[in-house]
Amino acid sequence: MSNLQQQLNFVLEIDRLKAVYRQAMVKSDNNRFENSAEHSWHIALTAQILSPYAEDGVDLQRVTTMLLLHDIVEIDAGDTFAFADQTALDGQPEKELAAADRIFGLLPEQQFIEIKSLWLEFEAAQSIDAQYAKAIDRILPLLQNINNEGGSWVKHGVSKTQVIKRNQYLEKSAPKLWQFVLEQIELSVEKGWLKPE
Amino acid sequence: MSNLQQQLNFVLEIDRLKAVYRQAMVKSDNNRFENSAEHSWHIALTAQILSPYAEDGVDLQRVTTMLLLHDIVEIDAGDTFAFADQTALDGQPEKELAAADRIFGLLPEQQFIEIKSLWLEFEAAQSIDAQYAKAIDRILPLLQNINNEGGSWVKHGVSKTQVIKRNQYLEKSAPKLWQFVLEQIELSVEKGWLKPE
Ligand SMILES: [Ca+2]
Repeated sequence: MSNLQQQLNFVLEIDRLKAVYRQAMVKSDNNRFENSAEHSWHIALTAQILSPYAEDGVDLQRVTTMLLLHDIVEIDAGDTFAFADQTALDGQPEKELAAADRIFGLLPEQQFIEIKSLWLEFEAAQSIDAQYAKAIDRILPLLQNINNEGGSWVKHGVSKTQVIKRNQYLEKSAPKLWQFVLEQIELSVEKGWLKPE
Repeated sequence: MSNLQQQLNFVLEIDRLKAVYRQAMVKSDNNRFENSAEHSWHIALTAQILSPYAEDGVDLQRVTTMLLLHDIVEIDAGDTFAFADQTALDGQPEKELAAADRIFGLLPEQQFIEIKSLWLEFEAAQSIDAQYAKAIDRILPLLQNINNEGGSWVKHGVSKTQVIKRNQYLEKSAPKLWQFVLEQIELSVEKGWLKPE
């Protein structure tokens, strides 16, 4: 198969991310569930808009590619709710790794290697680029919930500690946003959208 | 209002792009209509995957930002079908310009200027970056239609000449893809998915 045919097969395969639905709701569209493709668009653009708050050295091009790619494994592995209990999360890393090999593996060898390693970097959350990307992936649902009277937090009885822990990547990669998020979490507790524990 | 509050208002406002539906159908999700947010994700990633075919000098970071942004004006102006007749297209540029001023205008001044000028550059389709971005925006629906037995072409009785004209930006920005597209158009005529005129 030619490189081009492999690339086109990949491009058509990832169409399926539009059929992976998350717990988040789209307020602008009658609170239907959000799919992972439109979520990926939203965070890629949010990473650019909030880049003035990113720490020095964050490479926005790499972050953007990470965010556009990061959920593709859900085509095979499904989305798991951020605050699901541990049994729902068990086995997820293995499923996602197999998904990465199958789906990114549709690409020509060189692109497969590049893209898989970028995805692994995101998952490891060690580099400054990955930490900023993760932080943005996590701050957007927080903003959506705050804008939607608690949204999926209320629905699933999520607590303050859980949200703080989940947004902790901001602390190093974008400290000014971290301050803002801590304030918003306190306000959300006051409004009864988050459990105070 | 602080810069951060303006940026967050913008981030939340663009959520509405998830409620703008296009003529294209999502084959992987029971052929429901595609929205412009998930479409923007798909083309931003496609631009990266097909970048080996882009002419020298194409700046992928700028292209990606253009593609993530280019449809946001549809929040106010709506989507018009690519092959709509002229009356449906009349007045669209003015509506989109007003939309750009309102929506991008939610951002702090400096970001507003940068993003509006990038959007204008995309619309003008004169720079090599804008031409590659436009080409990718147009090749993806073509691939989707070919993968879906003619899809929206068949539904709307679209002709070969219309599709060739619409994909012409490939000729300069990615000549190898242009050759491929011409072949696919011929095959689509043979299959009866495009009118031969
Ligand atoms: Ca995610």
